[in-house]
Amino acid sequence: MARNSKKKTCAILIIGNEILSGRTKDQNVSFLTSWLNTNSGIKIQEVRIVPDIEKEIIKSVLDLSKNFKYVFTTGGIGPTHDDITSKSISKAFNKKYTYSPEALKILKKYYGNEFNDARKKMAKMPKGSKLVYNPSSAAPGFMVKNVICLPGVPLILKSMIHNIKKFIEPGSIIYSASVNCQTVESKIASELEKIQKKYKKSVEIGSYPFFRQGKIGVSVVIRTINKKSLQSCHKDIIKTIKNKKIKIVKG
Amino acid sequence: MARNSKKKTCAILIIGNEILSGRTKDQNVSFLTSWLNTNSGIKIQEVRIVPDIEKEIIKSVLDLSKNFKYVFTTGGIGPTHDDITSKSISKAFNKKYTYSPEALKILKKYYGNEFNDARKKMAKMPKGSKLVYNPSSAAPGFMVKNVICLPGVPLILKSMIHNIKKFIEPGSIIYSASVNCQTVESKIASELEKIQKKYKKSVEIGSYPFFRQGKIGVSVVIRTINKKSLQSCHKDIIKTIKNKKIKIVKG
Repeated sequence: MARNSKKKTCAILIIGNEILSGRTKDQNVSFLTSWLNTNSGIKIQEVRIVPDIEKEIIKSVLDLSKNFKYVFTTGGIGPTHDDITSKSISKAFNKKYTYSPEALKILKKYYGNEFNDARKKMAKMPKGSKLVYNPSSAAPGFMVKNVICLPGVPLILKSMIHNIKKFIEPGSIIYSASVNCQTVESKIASELEKIQKKYKKSVEIGSYPFFRQGKIGVSVVIRTINKKSLQSCHKDIIKTIKNKKIKIVKG
Repeated sequence: MARNSKKKTCAILIIGNEILSGRTKDQNVSFLTSWLNTNSGIKIQEVRIVPDIEKEIIKSVLDLSKNFKYVFTTGGIGPTHDDITSKSISKAFNKKYTYSPEALKILKKYYGNEFNDARKKMAKMPKGSKLVYNPSSAAPGFMVKNVICLPGVPLILKSMIHNIKKFIEPGSIIYSASVNCQTVESKIASELEKIQKKYKKSVEIGSYPFFRQGKIGVSVVIRTINKKSLQSCHKDIIKTIKNKKIKIVKG
């Protein structure tokens, strides 16, 4: 399997009761995994979703921070009592939970006369954090150690994501291709297994059934950091599917 | 905070490279958390998403199985080479990875003359597993120890979810109510914090900003296993919001 070493792979930690209760559908996992993959060659190896409970946040942050190159958290950095990410991460890393002078300045400018205590709370973070600027609603995210903390609201997260680029070292570009065909998985399973064995070291082949407009099919997806292997494996898969007289369709 | 003990809370483990690459948007977390909550009073306390890598699956399954009452896995029980959930979980629990006679019988009947090796693979699971019947595409899920393994395809998962009911002991019903109002979080944050402190032991209050049809607002969500606390806390929140002359809107 094409798999980076632990030091190159990253993790996402989604913090929020609303995701675990089913009230809110998470949109950040698919956005972040795609964005990091495409824009920074970063491969996400694990995602965790935990509630707004300090000890659960601390446990997961420490565990993920130790095992992955970067950890991206979303949620819990707003003004209300249930926003406890900044405080929990300060505790996790034994850093003082205090006002960032730069964040205070940004928020003061943004809110003017309406800069109340709840808004001030959004400038509190682990001492020494670097700020991730937020062009849409001012309150910044931050980076401490190898952990980058972002907001949970998808629109705000999207507006500021490009500002994390300066903090992360890009990984290898991951190339992918797919072949969609009108069949069921079990009709091509043994052939795919053989091709996966042939490209064991360089390519990851995934097989995903789909149901679209009343038709069933399979998407075979190839992912690799080696462009030549991608092309060669792609050809092998197309040849195999054609040999079995299975129709290839558009994705 | 209204929080069940570890023995009462449960976890979900989503297995699949396609979710971590961003290619496929997960739909199972929100479906499962809602369904379990509504139909069985089960509260999900943690979700993990891991790739199709045996040692990662084993590590997460053992960790979650030890710490939670039930673990629900999705994905990786199909016929192709990248479906390694059943084998990995067999290894995790030191159970033989073998054909379930009952599953073989079900699949043989369903596929008739087209029962090939790839399809037979879907009858392999940890020895002694109990089957979760699948009315839509026959291949069963299974339960071993406190782990219930379900397919990753959302339509199939939904078709068989009611068949897990007989394996799980229901938890307490969780009541919830919400108040939506036209304001921003920081204008009600200190009041909400006071109300949360008042109901510290019995109610969990969450605050979630929303952007809808060009308008901004906040949903205040109350969750508790105590019906009386729900009503009393709901009244307190409405009173507080009205006192601040903030408009309450429909959800």
